[in-house]
Amino acid sequence: MALWGGRFEEGVSEFTQRFGASLPVDKEMYAEDIAGSKAHSAMLAARGVISAEDRDAIHAGLDEILSEIEAGEFPFDINDEDIHMSIESKLIARIGDAGARLHTGRSRNDQVATDTRLFIKRRCRDLMAANIELRRALVDQAEANFDVLLPGYTHLQHAQPVLFSHHMLAYVWMLTRDFERLAAAYRAADACPLGAAALAGTTYPLDRHMTAETLGFARVIPNSLDAVSDRDYLLDLLYACSVSSIHLTRLCEEIILWSTSEFGFVTLSDSYSTGSSIMPQKKNPDFAELIRGKSGRVVGDLVGLLMTLKSLPLAYNKDLQEDKEGAFDAARTMEDCYVCAAGMIATMRVNADAMRAQVKKGYLAATDVADYLAKKGLPFRKAHEVVGHLVLECDKRGCDLEDLELADFQRECDLFEADIVEALNMEAIVAARTTYGGTGHEAVRIQMQEAKAALEADAAAL
Amino acid sequence: MALWGGRFEEGVSEFTQRFGASLPVDKEMYAEDIAGSKAHSAMLAARGVISAEDRDAIHAGLDEILSEIEAGEFPFDINDEDIHMSIESKLIARIGDAGARLHTGRSRNDQVATDTRLFIKRRCRDLMAANIELRRALVDQAEANFDVLLPGYTHLQHAQPVLFSHHMLAYVWMLTRDFERLAAAYRAADACPLGAAALAGTTYPLDRHMTAETLGFARVIPNSLDAVSDRDYLLDLLYACSVSSIHLTRLCEEIILWSTSEFGFVTLSDSYSTGSSIMPQKKNPDFAELIRGKSGRVVGDLVGLLMTLKSLPLAYNKDLQEDKEGAFDAARTMEDCYVCAAGMIATMRVNADAMRAQVKKGYLAATDVADYLAKKGLPFRKAHEVVGHLVLECDKRGCDLEDLELADFQRECDLFEADIVEALNMEAIVAARTTYGGTGHEAVRIQMQEAKAALEADAAAL
Amino acid sequence: MALWGGRFEEGVSEFTQRFGASLPVDKEMYAEDIAGSKAHSAMLAARGVISAEDRDAIHAGLDEILSEIEAGEFPFDINDEDIHMSIESKLIARIGDAGARLHTGRSRNDQVATDTRLFIKRRCRDLMAANIELRRALVDQAEANFDVLLPGYTHLQHAQPVLFSHHMLAYVWMLTRDFERLAAAYRAADACPLGAAALAGTTYPLDRHMTAETLGFARVIPNSLDAVSDRDYLLDLLYACSVSSIHLTRLCEEIILWSTSEFGFVTLSDSYSTGSSIMPQKKNPDFAELIRGKSGRVVGDLVGLLMTLKSLPLAYNKDLQEDKEGAFDAARTMEDCYVCAAGMIATMRVNADAMRAQVKKGYLAATDVADYLAKKGLPFRKAHEVVGHLVLECDKRGCDLEDLELADFQRECDLFEADIVEALNMEAIVAARTTYGGTGHEAVRIQMQEAKAALEADAAAL
Amino acid sequence: MALWGGRFEEGVSEFTQRFGASLPVDKEMYAEDIAGSKAHSAMLAARGVISAEDRDAIHAGLDEILSEIEAGEFPFDINDEDIHMSIESKLIARIGDAGARLHTGRSRNDQVATDTRLFIKRRCRDLMAANIELRRALVDQAEANFDVLLPGYTHLQHAQPVLFSHHMLAYVWMLTRDFERLAAAYRAADACPLGAAALAGTTYPLDRHMTAETLGFARVIPNSLDAVSDRDYLLDLLYACSVSSIHLTRLCEEIILWSTSEFGFVTLSDSYSTGSSIMPQKKNPDFAELIRGKSGRVVGDLVGLLMTLKSLPLAYNKDLQEDKEGAFDAARTMEDCYVCAAGMIATMRVNADAMRAQVKKGYLAATDVADYLAKKGLPFRKAHEVVGHLVLECDKRGCDLEDLELADFQRECDLFEADIVEALNMEAIVAARTTYGGTGHEAVRIQMQEAKAALEADAAAL
Repeated sequence: MALWGGRFEEGVSEFTQRFGASLPVDKEMYAEDIAGSKAHSAMLAARGVISAEDRDAIHAGLDEILSEIEAGEFPFDINDEDIHMSIESKLIARIGDAGARLHTGRSRNDQVATDTRLFIKRRCRDLMAANIELRRALVDQAEANFDVLLPGYTHLQHAQPVLFSHHMLAYVWMLTRDFERLAAAYRAADACPLGAAALAGTTYPLDRHMTAETLGFARVIPNSLDAVSDRDYLLDLLYACSVSSIHLTRLCEEIILWSTSEFGFVTLSDSYSTGSSIMPQKKNPDFAELIRGKSGRVVGDLVGLLMTLKSLPLAYNKDLQEDKEGAFDAARTMEDCYVCAAGMIATMRVNADAMRAQVKKGYLAATDVADYLAKKGLPFRKAHEVVGHLVLECDKRGCDLEDLELADFQRECDLFEADIVEALNMEAIVAARTTYGGTGHEAVRIQMQEAKAALEADAAAL
Repeated sequence: MALWGGRFEEGVSEFTQRFGASLPVDKEMYAEDIAGSKAHSAMLAARGVISAEDRDAIHAGLDEILSEIEAGEFPFDINDEDIHMSIESKLIARIGDAGARLHTGRSRNDQVATDTRLFIKRRCRDLMAANIELRRALVDQAEANFDVLLPGYTHLQHAQPVLFSHHMLAYVWMLTRDFERLAAAYRAADACPLGAAALAGTTYPLDRHMTAETLGFARVIPNSLDAVSDRDYLLDLLYACSVSSIHLTRLCEEIILWSTSEFGFVTLSDSYSTGSSIMPQKKNPDFAELIRGKSGRVVGDLVGLLMTLKSLPLAYNKDLQEDKEGAFDAARTMEDCYVCAAGMIATMRVNADAMRAQVKKGYLAATDVADYLAKKGLPFRKAHEVVGHLVLECDKRGCDLEDLELADFQRECDLFEADIVEALNMEAIVAARTTYGGTGHEAVRIQMQEAKAALEADAAAL
Repeated sequence: MALWGGRFEEGVSEFTQRFGASLPVDKEMYAEDIAGSKAHSAMLAARGVISAEDRDAIHAGLDEILSEIEAGEFPFDINDEDIHMSIESKLIARIGDAGARLHTGRSRNDQVATDTRLFIKRRCRDLMAANIELRRALVDQAEANFDVLLPGYTHLQHAQPVLFSHHMLAYVWMLTRDFERLAAAYRAADACPLGAAALAGTTYPLDRHMTAETLGFARVIPNSLDAVSDRDYLLDLLYACSVSSIHLTRLCEEIILWSTSEFGFVTLSDSYSTGSSIMPQKKNPDFAELIRGKSGRVVGDLVGLLMTLKSLPLAYNKDLQEDKEGAFDAARTMEDCYVCAAGMIATMRVNADAMRAQVKKGYLAATDVADYLAKKGLPFRKAHEVVGHLVLECDKRGCDLEDLELADFQRECDLFEADIVEALNMEAIVAARTTYGGTGHEAVRIQMQEAKAALEADAAAL
Repeated sequence: MALWGGRFEEGVSEFTQRFGASLPVDKEMYAEDIAGSKAHSAMLAARGVISAEDRDAIHAGLDEILSEIEAGEFPFDINDEDIHMSIESKLIARIGDAGARLHTGRSRNDQVATDTRLFIKRRCRDLMAANIELRRALVDQAEANFDVLLPGYTHLQHAQPVLFSHHMLAYVWMLTRDFERLAAAYRAADACPLGAAALAGTTYPLDRHMTAETLGFARVIPNSLDAVSDRDYLLDLLYACSVSSIHLTRLCEEIILWSTSEFGFVTLSDSYSTGSSIMPQKKNPDFAELIRGKSGRVVGDLVGLLMTLKSLPLAYNKDLQEDKEGAFDAARTMEDCYVCAAGMIATMRVNADAMRAQVKKGYLAATDVADYLAKKGLPFRKAHEVVGHLVLECDKRGCDLEDLELADFQRECDLFEADIVEALNMEAIVAARTTYGGTGHEAVRIQMQEAKAALEADAAAL
């Protein structure tokens, strides 16, 4: 159905029809389109623009179409260009003039903006729910392996011992921030453009606050030009997904490292591993890799929309049709990644012994030995140098700090006494980091409470 | 000064010294580094870790260094690698062991994170202030040209007449959202990592809440690993700048179009124009173009940091040294763009006559003629077709809708009556868009109040 | 069919099956997968690894499957994970052990690399052909409107008059470079990885040069690790598409500007325009906008793959499964954009009068007036200043340079004589730019020959 | 110096002067600017446009300025806006009218394009030279450790044993392709725009081929509009750097992994390591991380320029001033990364024993055991399953395949015989991969010759 028939003398070709069509992407928003049309027609009737009979006919017709779509029986036709025309043209075909009055005081520009915002609000909530499940899986692993010691790394070199639970909670906090970014995208989407019409508002006595309220929007957009051209909420969603996706690359990178023969810190469930068509022994952390790899498409989707929006004059331009595919793809990808990561983490086996074996390597106690000297009055910079020499000595001997004799220590600095052995005990080293946010057991227990409280507060807000 | 002397046997070359140095970038944070060190040493003294004398010596030494830096007399040396070592090594050289105790219970990992967060908080506020000035300039132009008619565009084709002030306010709302994103970046930065030490916390009895409060942070980061590896607040700033930069490309694109010989809608001040070295007649909107072009670097900076962060395991990795240059560049670029755009808008002359002349072209009344028929009972889709035929007729005759006779109208549809002439009056068409957010004078007056209220509320919150 | 059965005790869930599957994307390469398998099995037989009977059974089975896929009758099953297993599992089900021998000396790692390279080679050629058609459309418009004068712009301000044909040819040269980049991507893809097996080569006496030759590859990849991990050719394709896509944004931006009421330089065919559902008069350059908007996804696809590849260790990682969707999407998008742009340009009407009317505005002769003085001995910088004053005078009077009297000219500089009128004639100004590459008619005629020669050479090479 | 004085009545502010200035970036091109001016003036004299005396005065003046700049004595002034005006204004101040004639038949548009292309050609060659040095370092390490066995990885899981030299050569081939991309960027830059003037060519009888030849350009750009607006060569350079930067992230990721306590495959020189200010034992692979982290800025620079170029109409727009900073930064970054990586690789110690120890883990012989069965006639898919069961059995017993008895093998499949022990020998497994490109010693020796031949051919071409 050509919806702008009058002015045109030539038609479009099959190629341009396909190239210009948004139906394959926007038909995912069918429920939102129908909800929007029902709210609009109810308002039109309330304001006397259309009759109650027309409204009822429209609602009945739309309900019927909704059922057909959900039953997979609706005859979509690429020639309808988009979801809005697909539905409206069928409605008109079925109920006649009443259907033709639905579009009064409305344009596709504000209609598509309304549909998309409703859809994105829904998808943000889906993502927030999935985000919570992943946090829950991480918290559960942290609790189940609370006391396990892990070598803490900087530069991927052994640094200081930490609790495995402390390490897991670092990811929980990242995801907690991601939840907030998703919530910001939700709030950005939560404003109603309906009533902006093509760009300038309309001469019909619309009640924009009524439609906004019916559709569950928190507010009405105060400028009609902005209403039809603003895509910030899509950028906000893409950005929230991008950052979270990057966070997952960090988590998955570690899972992949920890699954190697060399580290051996965790064993992934067979359900989250795959084999090789040629190497019978292989058990690959495919899903961790796939999540890591998907960061590309999510960030690419963000860059794509920024690029598309660049230099567009007001108000609506067809370029904006390109706004949805990337955003929908990023949301779907991100939700899948959350779900997959949650399952993978939940079923992962932690090999405490392998971690403990590595804790013994790499002089993880060195900082505490320096602190030992500093607490005895040696300026820290000097204590640091003393321990550096001890490490170099161990390196040459091929031993660890705890293998040195007291005399070896004292040869470097006469402040060393017999109590140095306590400074070399890994459990004690960890436990001694008692300040807020540190890896000491008590500090982590407090942190765990805070992380869980944030999780439950977020879950309750959904 | 080699700050890890003990363990190493070979030095670094001049090349690696330069390649690895962050001093050229991070020395911009000298004031924050000194403030952080003063807060840290004050807390160490309060907790009895260092003596009051040491604290006083440290503070006096740091104050002296601050004065020297601000007077341009401080001897920066690339061999100091970063701003932290530049200051600390000079401090130790001047006050001896007291200076060497400053680093107790601290690592460069939490130190640099603290400095950067303090610096970014300051820059966010600078950006928010500049954002407000640009909004003010737009509001002022909107008020000064409140009644001016502009052809409203979709697809850069004439669509419906709008008030110039309505159009300007669309940008004010975009920038209002950008302010909120900058505020979100500020809040993200507003958490104190100090006390996380290298990655695991420390065995010294630090009071992390005390240092956070001294430095003006709203909260303390609850996980030491996260504290040294989180760069989300930089991403948030880069993202806020990226979106706002894209908004400015849209504004500048329009300024550039409007400055053409073909549009002629505005005249830029000579102060915001440049000429040509070869073409004597040229007056170019250079600054609008430059702002538009700067979107590339800002978005590039965002992509750069996302890329850098991808797949980094916990906690600190040297890759993170690459976090600052792009973020600082984006903030500086964005602030300059705001300032430049504000000056350009404030000094821009609006050519109401040229806009008015274009309002007469392109059948801007066509929608209202269709609405005229729809209000007489013709379904909108049919009214649309009738007017399409009228437009095609005008096109062939080379005239406008208002040049048609009543008989011409009636030939297409017998619902037309003599009152059709009112539907063709541009001022009346604009005025009739009375619903909230529309371009009608009254609606825009209300919108203007809301935009100004938001502006003042944001300004007051700074 | 689980192709790594032996080592695994638990299966994968429906979710992970879907999430991990590449079939929806890679089934587009069915023809390449079958060609690869036929070449591989032919070589295996030639080297005595499998029997001639097995080879014949394999070939017959694969041919049957090919027919079924092309007839739309092949039973694809998401549980087959990818196109390779889809085909191979059906083959084994049909022909038994012979089918199970097909995978001898091969891994999915080298198989998928081979398929993808074959597919990309085909798509590069498609793109090169479409690129040529667009260049042809531009050349045709340039020839059809060879003499038409257009105001040349810098900073979107009138600068100097140029031939419309000269302007069109600027785009032809851009596209000529794009063709070369596509050819580079083709050459990058044109190397055979088959025989690299999983990563290390194989112990079977394969003849890698034989399979490469059978499949039409120009060379064999000399390192098996590189063979399974290299995705440079996809980056090269994405980059070639990205640059060309940016070139099209520049072309489309101009088409959109030229289609405005204010410029009016061209009229797009109805077939490449659309209307509005609410504004009956609208005729929008939708397709130019859509092509412009599609730049986002293409560049986003490039960024996505760069991100995905970052920090991947050798050799194959599952992240690489994300390599295809973006590259295939970019190729499809780009081909559509070329086709659409070619049709739009070919059917575009050039409004010579509107261009000519603008040529009279904006003092386009100013440079030539300055040159006039310079040729009489005045240093150019001084001549420039003289003409600047004349332009300012015209601005104040509201007239053009050709409206000034000789006395007006002489008041600014006594070198002006009566022959100044010739310096103000637009056709003469254009014609005088005779040096190579300039906009003078003769120079453009030569340029046109070169552009066509390049076009025909490229077409012949396909 | 205001170079467009005549037409303007108001000046620019200090802020806009700074914001609009490109001098801080483009002054790096001083030598190219002077070379371009000398070539242009020599040609002007040859064509009789200026006198020989003027030419000689210009050349002498420019030579003097060149000496001063190189001696650091040239008085750069930000008010000169760019390098071109810096030099030209001083020249005019010194030699008077002759200097003012230099700009005859030239515009800053073609001047800056010429300078940038000359500069980029030089930088491309620098990069190509540095690329060769890195390849040489890799080849040297490969030769020095030719026979060392390394576990080959897919999915970072042990897959099959490979030669360390084979693995190193994989990177050499990546870099060989990068060299070709740099060469393509060089060729793209190697075309002369001089003579295009502002956009349309000029009326002076310039000899564009003469200036091009003097400056060492391979060809002359055939369209003046394209000449001043084309920035493809900068994109080509940014792209070449981006891909190579991603390649280095892969190399550095492996170096970092191999340097861990868990892998221990290599030991970096102290010169390419750094320590920690707090942890005395740390020896961090800082430079490998820094190179990996720098990928962000390089890719960000590419995205930035693509974004900046999007939607720019012809010909020159001020947005294009943003073209250089990112490209220059990427070139400098990339060159530094090459140099740093070459030094790091050259001084890296390979721990053959640690690699060998890991070769024994992870059932690296499994594929060969399956091949053993396949060669005895069992279809490969079935052999794969048999070995999978054997691996599972080993997993349960905590042993390796070579620890199994013949009876254990035969329990799974009666095709196993006593010669199975040979299939389990790692050296034999590697040596057996004899086909072209495989990891067998002979095959790698051939590959090494090819890699070195390519290296020498590239070096010779510089």
